[in-house]
Amino acid sequence: MLFNLECGFKTKIFKFETDRSRNIKAKEEKIRRQKRCHSLDSWPSPFGMRVRIALDLKGIKYEYKEENLLEQKNPLLVESNPDYKKVPVLIHKGRPICESLIIIQYIHAIWKDRFPLMPSDPYQQAQARLWAEFVEKKLYDWGKMIWMNKGEEQEKATVEFIESLKLLEEKLGEKPSFGGETMGFLDVTLVSHYS
Amino acid sequence: MLFNLECGFKTKIFKFETDRSRNIKAKEEKIRRQKRCHSLDSWPSPFGMRVRIALDLKGIKYEYKEENLLEQKNPLLVESNPDYKKVPVLIHKGRPICESLIIIQYIHAIWKDRFPLMPSDPYQQAQARLWAEFVEKKLYDWGKMIWMNKGEEQEKATVEFIESLKLLEEKLGEKPSFGGETMGFLDVTLVSHYS
Repeated sequence: MLFNLECGFKTKIFKFETDRSRNIKAKEEKIRRQKRCHSLDSWPSPFGMRVRIALDLKGIKYEYKEENLLEQKNPLLVESNPDYKKVPVLIHKGRPICESLIIIQYIHAIWKDRFPLMPSDPYQQAQARLWAEFVEKKLYDWGKMIWMNKGEEQEKATVEFIESLKLLEEKLGEKPSFGGETMGFLDVTLVSHYS
Repeated sequence: MLFNLECGFKTKIFKFETDRSRNIKAKEEKIRRQKRCHSLDSWPSPFGMRVRIALDLKGIKYEYKEENLLEQKNPLLVESNPDYKKVPVLIHKGRPICESLIIIQYIHAIWKDRFPLMPSDPYQQAQARLWAEFVEKKLYDWGKMIWMNKGEEQEKATVEFIESLKLLEEKLGEKPSFGGETMGFLDVTLVSHYS
């Protein structure tokens, strides 16, 4: 009787310990998963490349997940970016961040202690954002039109594309990069398209 | 002779004092001009209204300059926004800042001590930027298509417009505004279109 009681007690303690250890492991795994940085990306995407460059400049380790955009979209991508269903998506602390320019600003704000991507001065920040939009709205669209058209349309797009590049060259001046001595927001935005 | 010398001396002193006072006044005027905040705007512009709301929420005094966009564009506007030649342009400390969403972020960063327009948390910042882009790219375009089309095209745009509004309503939830208790970046972006 005493033996049985003792055995039952020990079994309960063992079960309790096992459950406890399993719970701790599950919690630790959850924390590890939340701490991890995942990037849902596709290698030919210049927008995805922006995020890769920004993470590399900051020296952030992350898990790269290749998305095949020609096949049916991965449920994780659809769940993470329900409105656009596009790469890149950065998943950090279990939460998705979408749109490359927004992701770069997030990366800058989260890992502030290393390799600043945004200027500290509000006016310079505004300038960097304005020119990044210029790359996004004008340079990218003219470049796309050169590839997608022929004849007169292509010629017109080529002229506009070169004019846009000249404006950017003027903005760059004698500096080694738009960010000054090191790469910044505008460099990361631009270089992924034309490297 | 002595009288003449004295008179000449006094005239020189007087001229010196007048020049000095003129220079000081010019410098003071320059500083005042640089400190002043000008907004190049056009009253029907929802993008201009965003800037007006942001400045009012922060309690910033500014000079409003109405631009007649139907007539030849004001040289100050062309000089301040040479790439887009559009309102709104905020001129602060003598430097132009263009594009409404960039201007709001500038206003937030410059006058940080009062009425925060952007959330302090980087994830919430990213969310605010993402949804502001949603308003900019989707809601505004569908709204424009309702006004500019008839028949089937108009019906399609109306359905998409309502769907976009539903998504925003879901995002708003039970909060009094997207910014929480008070208006924030996304509220300012949205309200100017539909107030």
